[in-house]
Amino acid sequence: MSNILVLHGPNLNLLGLREPDIYGSKTLDDINLALLDQSNRHQGQLRIMQSNHEGELIDAIHEAVGWADGILINPGAYTHYSLALRDAIAGVSLPCVEVHLSNIHSRESFRQKSVIAPICIGQVSGFGWRSYTLGLLALHDHLSDSGK
Amino acid sequence: MSNILVLHGPNLNLLGLREPDIYGSKTLDDINLALLDQSNRHQGQLRIMQSNHEGELIDAIHEAVGWADGILINPGAYTHYSLALRDAIAGVSLPCVEVHLSNIHSRESFRQKSVIAPICIGQVSGFGWRSYTLGLLALHDHLSDSGK
Amino acid sequence: MSNILVLHGPNLNLLGLREPDIYGSKTLDDINLALLDQSNRHQGQLRIMQSNHEGELIDAIHEAVGWADGILINPGAYTHYSLALRDAIAGVSLPCVEVHLSNIHSRESFRQKSVIAPICIGQVSGFGWRSYTLGLLALHDHLSDSGK
Amino acid sequence: MSNILVLHGPNLNLLGLREPDIYGSKTLDDINLALLDQSNRHQGQLRIMQSNHEGELIDAIHEAVGWADGILINPGAYTHYSLALRDAIAGVSLPCVEVHLSNIHSRESFRQKSVIAPICIGQVSGFGWRSYTLGLLALHDHLSDSGK
Amino acid sequence: MSNILVLHGPNLNLLGLREPDIYGSKTLDDINLALLDQSNRHQGQLRIMQSNHEGELIDAIHEAVGWADGILINPGAYTHYSLALRDAIAGVSLPCVEVHLSNIHSRESFRQKSVIAPICIGQVSGFGWRSYTLGLLALHDHLSDSGK
Amino acid sequence: MSNILVLHGPNLNLLGLREPDIYGSKTLDDINLALLDQSNRHQGQLRIMQSNHEGELIDAIHEAVGWADGILINPGAYTHYSLALRDAIAGVSLPCVEVHLSNIHSRESFRQKSVIAPICIGQVSGFGWRSYTLGLLALHDHLSDSGK
Amino acid sequence: MSNILVLHGPNLNLLGLREPDIYGSKTLDDINLALLDQSNRHQGQLRIMQSNHEGELIDAIHEAVGWADGILINPGAYTHYSLALRDAIAGVSLPCVEVHLSNIHSRESFRQKSVIAPICIGQVSGFGWRSYTLGLLALHDHLSDSGK
Amino acid sequence: MSNILVLHGPNLNLLGLREPDIYGSKTLDDINLALLDQSNRHQGQLRIMQSNHEGELIDAIHEAVGWADGILINPGAYTHYSLALRDAIAGVSLPCVEVHLSNIHSRESFRQKSVIAPICIGQVSGFGWRSYTLGLLALHDHLSDSGK
Amino acid sequence: MSNILVLHGPNLNLLGLREPDIYGSKTLDDINLALLDQSNRHQGQLRIMQSNHEGELIDAIHEAVGWADGILINPGAYTHYSLALRDAIAGVSLPCVEVHLSNIHSRESFRQKSVIAPICIGQVSGFGWRSYTLGLLALHDHLSDSGK
Amino acid sequence: MSNILVLHGPNLNLLGLREPDIYGSKTLDDINLALLDQSNRHQGQLRIMQSNHEGELIDAIHEAVGWADGILINPGAYTHYSLALRDAIAGVSLPCVEVHLSNIHSRESFRQKSVIAPICIGQVSGFGWRSYTLGLLALHDHLSDSGK
Amino acid sequence: MSNILVLHGPNLNLLGLREPDIYGSKTLDDINLALLDQSNRHQGQLRIMQSNHEGELIDAIHEAVGWADGILINPGAYTHYSLALRDAIAGVSLPCVEVHLSNIHSRESFRQKSVIAPICIGQVSGFGWRSYTLGLLALHDHLSDSGK
Amino acid sequence: MSNILVLHGPNLNLLGLREPDIYGSKTLDDINLALLDQSNRHQGQLRIMQSNHEGELIDAIHEAVGWADGILINPGAYTHYSLALRDAIAGVSLPCVEVHLSNIHSRESFRQKSVIAPICIGQVSGFGWRSYTLGLLALHDHLSDSGK
Repeated sequence: MSNILVLHGPNLNLLGLREPDIYGSKTLDDINLALLDQSNRHQGQLRIMQSNHEGELIDAIHEAVGWADGILINPGAYTHYSLALRDAIAGVSLPCVEVHLSNIHSRESFRQKSVIAPICIGQVSGFGWRSYTLGLLALHDHLSDSGK
Repeated sequence: MSNILVLHGPNLNLLGLREPDIYGSKTLDDINLALLDQSNRHQGQLRIMQSNHEGELIDAIHEAVGWADGILINPGAYTHYSLALRDAIAGVSLPCVEVHLSNIHSRESFRQKSVIAPICIGQVSGFGWRSYTLGLLALHDHLSDSGK
Repeated sequence: MSNILVLHGPNLNLLGLREPDIYGSKTLDDINLALLDQSNRHQGQLRIMQSNHEGELIDAIHEAVGWADGILINPGAYTHYSLALRDAIAGVSLPCVEVHLSNIHSRESFRQKSVIAPICIGQVSGFGWRSYTLGLLALHDHLSDSGK
Repeated sequence: MSNILVLHGPNLNLLGLREPDIYGSKTLDDINLALLDQSNRHQGQLRIMQSNHEGELIDAIHEAVGWADGILINPGAYTHYSLALRDAIAGVSLPCVEVHLSNIHSRESFRQKSVIAPICIGQVSGFGWRSYTLGLLALHDHLSDSGK
Repeated sequence: MSNILVLHGPNLNLLGLREPDIYGSKTLDDINLALLDQSNRHQGQLRIMQSNHEGELIDAIHEAVGWADGILINPGAYTHYSLALRDAIAGVSLPCVEVHLSNIHSRESFRQKSVIAPICIGQVSGFGWRSYTLGLLALHDHLSDSGK
Repeated sequence: MSNILVLHGPNLNLLGLREPDIYGSKTLDDINLALLDQSNRHQGQLRIMQSNHEGELIDAIHEAVGWADGILINPGAYTHYSLALRDAIAGVSLPCVEVHLSNIHSRESFRQKSVIAPICIGQVSGFGWRSYTLGLLALHDHLSDSGK
Repeated sequence: MSNILVLHGPNLNLLGLREPDIYGSKTLDDINLALLDQSNRHQGQLRIMQSNHEGELIDAIHEAVGWADGILINPGAYTHYSLALRDAIAGVSLPCVEVHLSNIHSRESFRQKSVIAPICIGQVSGFGWRSYTLGLLALHDHLSDSGK
Repeated sequence: MSNILVLHGPNLNLLGLREPDIYGSKTLDDINLALLDQSNRHQGQLRIMQSNHEGELIDAIHEAVGWADGILINPGAYTHYSLALRDAIAGVSLPCVEVHLSNIHSRESFRQKSVIAPICIGQVSGFGWRSYTLGLLALHDHLSDSGK
Repeated sequence: MSNILVLHGPNLNLLGLREPDIYGSKTLDDINLALLDQSNRHQGQLRIMQSNHEGELIDAIHEAVGWADGILINPGAYTHYSLALRDAIAGVSLPCVEVHLSNIHSRESFRQKSVIAPICIGQVSGFGWRSYTLGLLALHDHLSDSGK
Repeated sequence: MSNILVLHGPNLNLLGLREPDIYGSKTLDDINLALLDQSNRHQGQLRIMQSNHEGELIDAIHEAVGWADGILINPGAYTHYSLALRDAIAGVSLPCVEVHLSNIHSRESFRQKSVIAPICIGQVSGFGWRSYTLGLLALHDHLSDSGK
Repeated sequence: MSNILVLHGPNLNLLGLREPDIYGSKTLDDINLALLDQSNRHQGQLRIMQSNHEGELIDAIHEAVGWADGILINPGAYTHYSLALRDAIAGVSLPCVEVHLSNIHSRESFRQKSVIAPICIGQVSGFGWRSYTLGLLALHDHLSDSGK
Repeated sequence: MSNILVLHGPNLNLLGLREPDIYGSKTLDDINLALLDQSNRHQGQLRIMQSNHEGELIDAIHEAVGWADGILINPGAYTHYSLALRDAIAGVSLPCVEVHLSNIHSRESFRQKSVIAPICIGQVSGFGWRSYTLGLLALHDHLSDSGK
């Protein structure tokens, strides 16, 4: 039974509206329901937050200390430059999985580099909304392996 | 008759105070009045906002959906690294014009690259406060051409 | 019910022996059993092959045409330079998922770039042997979504 | 009342014919008429020239000394490498505005860099034929501000 | 007697918790007390603020105009990319000293470059919490030399 | 039966004189005779021009519209930087073949990159005067395949 | 009368199947027949081989010593990284012509650089299956010029 | 007694007018008189030409064959990109000296690289109009040493 | 008494034939005899293999586990890109010495970088066939020092 | 009570004379007196040396072994390239503080990189002669913290 | 009448012996005699020094203050990296001319960049021993122009 | 019987003291004894020198002319930037072998590049003190092969 903080970064509230050929037609609510459903099956707890503000995402990571066992994050465009977000995750010493809806490795060159990934356990990229459920599964398994 | 969201990015509230040899002696209020006056002549509506917060600028772009026909933005220093702002503009699919007071192409090399411009209609740079009025004119004409 | 070609690239036959602090203590047989077990649960078929020879991997991809519905591949070190492998996958037009045991994004800079990933559906990296099972799950779901 | 030299660089004589999806369907004559009309309204004089020859463009800039108050230039492909054109403009010490039909910032990377812009007042890019009229307006206003 | 704005950037609220082998075991309160104590000895006033929000840091810098004689800042990860923070400091024309707990010059290459330092008086890096007290001393002396 | 514009770029009038170990001992007249002879056998028409002037080459390309079915060009040193020449060829929408006497891929690194090639059908390089006849053959065949 | 080794590199066995919009609809057999037909007209001998294995291509080059007068090669993706193939060709001191179906100079940047070309006589690129026949013609002519 | 072609590149006709703090107050006529005077003392002949046209400069170099013993050139801005000019000088096999009024090594980085210098005997840079007379002296001495 | 695997990479079977001014006139058999002779004097055992196939070299390294105490390798052109070979050597955890006949540090820039060397004990380069005997000596001494 | 070696690198003997707008008007003697005074207050000993010779600076560092507890160094221009100086400091294993009079981070790009700083405790830059006294204070405190 | 310090950098004592095809057959004494002879004709004084020691060259520059009116220097290999030498010349504020025997712009790329030239009046390169006499002439003329 | 100059560069006098995990526990005297012993067995003469001064190393190389048959050098940190040392070795035309205690190819990237190696016979790196004895052996053999 694990407690997971789920963070959606900037512009992910637009899902379904924004460039559906790239990001798919599911809304963020659809994805959150899928994650909650999956978490329930594992008897885990989720706290879910979306923000376009780098600082709010950092605050949320700090506040996760003491409650959460791990973090599932889609940092959106912050993936590529937010060293502050990277330091926040490294600072709280919680295992983190980075997910992306689109395959960032086949897009513009600036999207192929993540400054967050090096301090995560791993990265799942390219499977649409399923990147989230795969990432949550990976995080659950990691926590189970670690005895949590 | 068009509705335009005008966004002023970080530090533009300092206009008149900040490095006047680069940015001129007009205040932000002076510029806003000039824009409102010009917009009135076109029977258009403006909503104007200045923020130093990347997240607030993104929120404002999202909230423009449904009301605005286009965006006029001086992204300030975010011009050069805010991929989140870029994604916000691309995500709402509104025509956008980027303006700069100074000629960014003749300044430090890091100011010569805009991550926002590639998803805009065009860019106006170097004409002081008139960059705004030229940009607004260009946006109006673009909307007229598109039948809006 | 789907048919999947599973390819293990160079040096993966050493698993369990080779640098276990990086690659884990499971052997390749352990991983293959886990994949077969998972595939059986989906009533799918797997063909599994490991080779240290770039040409054999390419041949295997070509021979998959007509039988396989998708490819699951850990290209090992070929990830970073085998454009021939990339062309093989693109050439057969089969959906492909790339997996890595270690988090390649936190290792030497030459390991952070994949020449294969841009022509795959997606990439799973960093979850040890589970990267394979997550990748197989992602591929199955992708095929299901496509009606196969 | 100002005298302006308008320079059209290489291949702009093809306008209307050349890649209309990028450059629009107006011909160069259409643009020149629009500029003359606008100039007349400001009681200014225009001299207009198109050339595919770098040297002729430079000669024309030199010959503008004594007559012209400013230069409006679309340097075409010379934008990206003609340091000789840059030196010509800097050498005659006339205020210059650079315009582009297409948004050069969203095209091939070699088109995103202008060697001319750093010695201009400013740049207008991306508004089709209106880039010229906006640029002329900007130049007129600049000259008015300077008391010319 | 001088008035100094002390700014702590993102993740510095984690001090003592976060990677103590890099950042030391003192908390931010410990550091603030040391700074206040030192300031009292110089009969100066301090206003101290920590924020994970780039925009709040910029706002605070703007609000310092009229009260503060100088700024002491540890920009945290914003050191390496926040051009908006840089412009804020340059815009208010207050002397600024940049400090870092760790020796940024011996860490990852992305931490070795500061976009803030070029518009500061100077930089102190590597002395743990003493970087702050050294930086405050340097700022006081600079203000004394300038007759403030 | 096809009409081809043959363009020889700068310094090719020196052929036979200029560095014969690199460019061979045939003169430009020799090459032109070979091309005319070959064209006659295909019942095609050639117009041949050599110029050291970038602008004259561009003018010639423009004037080919309406008469020529294709262009055979050895851009000489303009190969490596004349974006204006590139735009001229792209602008007239005629199929073009680029040829080089020497193998540019085995010479100075600046000669290995062509800014013209990306908008041509193909490139023939390294076979001395035969590069021209091979290129003409390739262009004829291309036109035949296209039904011209 | 000359003896030529014709080598087809990786994935060329897929011709006709693989991305026909890039590589055309002819199969490798079609191309080989065209080459044999052309060679017969010159009373030359061809040995033709396709392999996806870098080592087999190298072996074939070595074995050509004593029999072949020249090599015609399409190195496929090995064009861009196989220094071993380059050394093999240089090592046997046989004249070699490199051919490509597509115009590699207008594709991804990694395809624009050939490590093989610098040690060849020349390169023919972009004319579909005719690149082979043009290349063979060039090689025959080269051998004739050399008195073979 | 030697015959020298003196070439002045683009914008040098502006001398005296153009940025006199960089290029000095002497006109081109002043410089030419100084060169003629010096040449007379050596009983040499000069032909002097200024052009803003790259092609005319190349033509002039070609026409020097048979008359001139050497070339003295200030290529102006063509210094930095005109590979065609470079090939012209290399093609006629005449000894050439490159001169610059300003010290190009202390100016913008793009002015510090000459594509012409590698095929010249030497370069003289930074001594105002005297760079020409020093360069002519160097060329005379070089020709004397060579027995011309 | 030590057991050593000696590996000769691609094209080394051509020794004596291939570019003798670079690689010397000794054949591979000559070198192997010298190595065997030297090994006999140390009462060691050698297994020697040459292959042009990257995969065969990797297989041979894997098969050395259990028998060999160390590896002496001249990776030929694979030196510069075969990350798979690198991983194979690192994976079997055997001490390895890299040798080169020519001084790779004075050749083309792409030959100056070894991807293998970083995981070897050391490198001997430039002494012709003696690089092998020096490398074997170094490996023997290393093994002796380690008590093998 | 600590013993400190103070090293002044090349050209620092010119202080007061050399570019006083950058380096200030204090002489090296002034700075040394300030350091001695500060050291006396801490009951420490200083040995001070200035040299323009890289080798003498290295010798001095070696000779400090056994007497000194730490090193305070302004490496002058050697900061940017003297790897030998870096190795000397690392070799003697004494704590070292690097100081600079000017803010090297706001000067020419080649002055922004220190090859010495990565093996120092920290760096103080930009406070004129006070950089030395701040650096000495930092070193004393570091030694106190370490129990020396 | 002017006093000039002439400095010969490292390895110039080998002149006549060292690579005469690059550096000529004159010895350093020959060059010094030519310089002294030329200086006498101008009634100037020379002090000449050669050193292989960077520090000694810097010391000599410092000691020139008060006696010398200018510096003529061939920095040898220090041209390319001795920032300390650069700072020494800039520090004493004496006009300096840099000379090179060979044309550094046509040699290895690392020899094409001078870190000294940006703070000199100008550079003379490529005329063998005459580069010195031309450089001395240029320096004398510069001093005359300045009224010394 | 050969005469060899052995040069130890900067900081090698610290051997045994300096970072023994990288450089081993042997002192420089130990290494020198081993070299002398080996040289005696070959009836050769050694002159051995260590210096931290670049200039002294250059002087020693110059003075070797007439006595020495070859040079064995460990340039220490000068390996990576001393072009003056490189020119000295090239200037005296003596065969030279470069040795390194540690494997420079597996250390910091700046240590992987030698500016000395390109003008040496070869390089031995990574075998601790034995790099010297292997290098001396290689040099003796080279001299024997050359008949010295």
